[in-house]
Amino acid sequence: MSELRYDPVKQIWSVIATDRSRKPDDFLVKRLEFREDEMTVCPFCKGHESKTGTEIYSLKGSNGWATRVVPNRYPAFRIEGELKRTGHGIYDAVNAVGAHEVVIETPRHDINPGNYTEDILYNLFYTFRERVKDLKKDTRFRYIMPFKNYGLLAGSNINHPHSQIIALPVTPNIVKTKLSAALEHYHNKERCLFCDILDQERNENTRIIYENQDFIALCPYASALPFEVSIYPKRHNHCFENTDEGELSGLADITKEVFGRLYKCLENPPLNMVVHTSPPAVKRPSQSGHWASIKEDFHWHIEITPRLSGVAGFESGTGFYINPVAPESAADYLKGAGN
Amino acid sequence: MSELRYDPVKQIWSVIATDRSRKPDDFLVKRLEFREDEMTVCPFCKGHESKTGTEIYSLKGSNGWATRVVPNRYPAFRIEGELKRTGHGIYDAVNAVGAHEVVIETPRHDINPGNYTEDILYNLFYTFRERVKDLKKDTRFRYIMPFKNYGLLAGSNINHPHSQIIALPVTPNIVKTKLSAALEHYHNKERCLFCDILDQERNENTRIIYENQDFIALCPYASALPFEVSIYPKRHNHCFENTDEGELSGLADITKEVFGRLYKCLENPPLNMVVHTSPPAVKRPSQSGHWASIKEDFHWHIEITPRLSGVAGFESGTGFYINPVAPESAADYLKGAGN
Repeated sequence: MSELRYDPVKQIWSVIATDRSRKPDDFLVKRLEFREDEMTVCPFCKGHESKTGTEIYSLKGSNGWATRVVPNRYPAFRIEGELKRTGHGIYDAVNAVGAHEVVIETPRHDINPGNYTEDILYNLFYTFRERVKDLKKDTRFRYIMPFKNYGLLAGSNINHPHSQIIALPVTPNIVKTKLSAALEHYHNKERCLFCDILDQERNENTRIIYENQDFIALCPYASALPFEVSIYPKRHNHCFENTDEGELSGLADITKEVFGRLYKCLENPPLNMVVHTSPPAVKRPSQSGHWASIKEDFHWHIEITPRLSGVAGFESGTGFYINPVAPESAADYLKGAGN
Repeated sequence: MSELRYDPVKQIWSVIATDRSRKPDDFLVKRLEFREDEMTVCPFCKGHESKTGTEIYSLKGSNGWATRVVPNRYPAFRIEGELKRTGHGIYDAVNAVGAHEVVIETPRHDINPGNYTEDILYNLFYTFRERVKDLKKDTRFRYIMPFKNYGLLAGSNINHPHSQIIALPVTPNIVKTKLSAALEHYHNKERCLFCDILDQERNENTRIIYENQDFIALCPYASALPFEVSIYPKRHNHCFENTDEGELSGLADITKEVFGRLYKCLENPPLNMVVHTSPPAVKRPSQSGHWASIKEDFHWHIEITPRLSGVAGFESGTGFYINPVAPESAADYLKGAGN
């Protein structure tokens, strides 16, 4: 079974996924190209349903299924068992209890995010919502995150459109930092940090790309990477899975716009999309000893990151990023790429 | 001028490097290949010294220069001026005062880390040492870091062997975390955290790849990425730049071994190398209110990371990594790849 290991110096967890163990040969540089015959073997195509593990969920479409959720074939986390924490001299480990699901986004094999229809995106977010609701019932999980990798530089080596959902037995540091920043802001001002950011962004109007009735898309002020985009619901809401069907349509619309414009500006770039929703609601103490509810201070959001270059030593050594495109310029390009 | 911007939610700094501003076209996927004619235009080759900015440092070799240090042509940080911190509504910014230097590692254009000679590596570390000593005199700098990017996936798009040195006006979060982990350990046990790790590693002897008189190379227990290697001096020493000439020879030897074995196992992989030395020595309070000196608790080290795949959404959304190769297996492969 895989294992989470804690680095006592860097203070981060890594998943040592022995279940998907690889030999050096497995890493020799691959290129992801579309081959004519790959659809005949693709386990995610219609007619090949028996090639995946037992279906966890499926959404019906006009002609069979619209989306399917299946277990990851090489899961980093396994659903069975209790969490066990062990010490190993100076080191710490936890067994990798959690969930690792794959969302097959559409029966169509040969389509990329730049030409997704609104229907595909509506079905994808609907599926994310249903799975997050279900996984949140399991009290062993501290964080549940739907995400998409597209293209080799973004960590994907399967062409058929797919996403993943992961449920973690510990709260990741990046999430902890966001939660405590939001909580401190709320404690000091009794306002949501994210709502305040959206107010300032709308007043300045230099980094906004697109908005519709319910959503806004912008290039974040301190973007670490070129052409990063965040999507926020305009109405304060801590939980992605509280999104109703009307709002899901708006979310499909704005995501289609963002993907389409990135595709146009950057010629079908590799990209990651991550949905950040609140962890299971708990009462937590702030650093100053007061208590607040996650409902008031967290605001769910989506982060979309094109992967245009490799990770350099400067970034991995410091956690700093050097972004060669000001977010105001990126927003200008993406605003201009609308139809 | 470039600007450091702080993300109020993620609580990280990013450098918005407007001096090296790029258009979307600049990102269309490039491949780094060796072209016969590129040596005639390469600014880092012998005879082309006038194509670089004013030389900052140079090490003499048997036949002209062995290494040269020149300003980065697209610096993320500039040496001139005082640090200015500014607010921008809810956001914070700092002007990007610092240093950004390029180390030309050898006059030879067509050589890669897998076949570096001990001489090249000795000269490289000697040059790093001299530049770090010099930059540490500037009291505006909080952290000074030599690093190397090799290959496109590792953030490099120049073939001629080169490294970089960066001096930062703020302490990066990753470094802060390491420093405070080391300080707390020292406060609790009056021992160096890194020395304790080395003791345990030598007792277990499952992750060590190679050692010589002064240095040890191992795959870290909680490696985030496959085939990560750390090199530590065996003797406790907080400052890389205190390394004497005899030790520099040992460092060149062990680095040659590590590069050579990674080259053999992974067929010339893209990689990053980062040298972590202590920041300018200061007396600091620990979390528990006691004081300690960085001299006793920090231990300089080198991190070498092959870049074998892109960054996935899971990693960017959580800071967690899924590593498909247990460090014990990676160490076995790399141990076996010795001559």
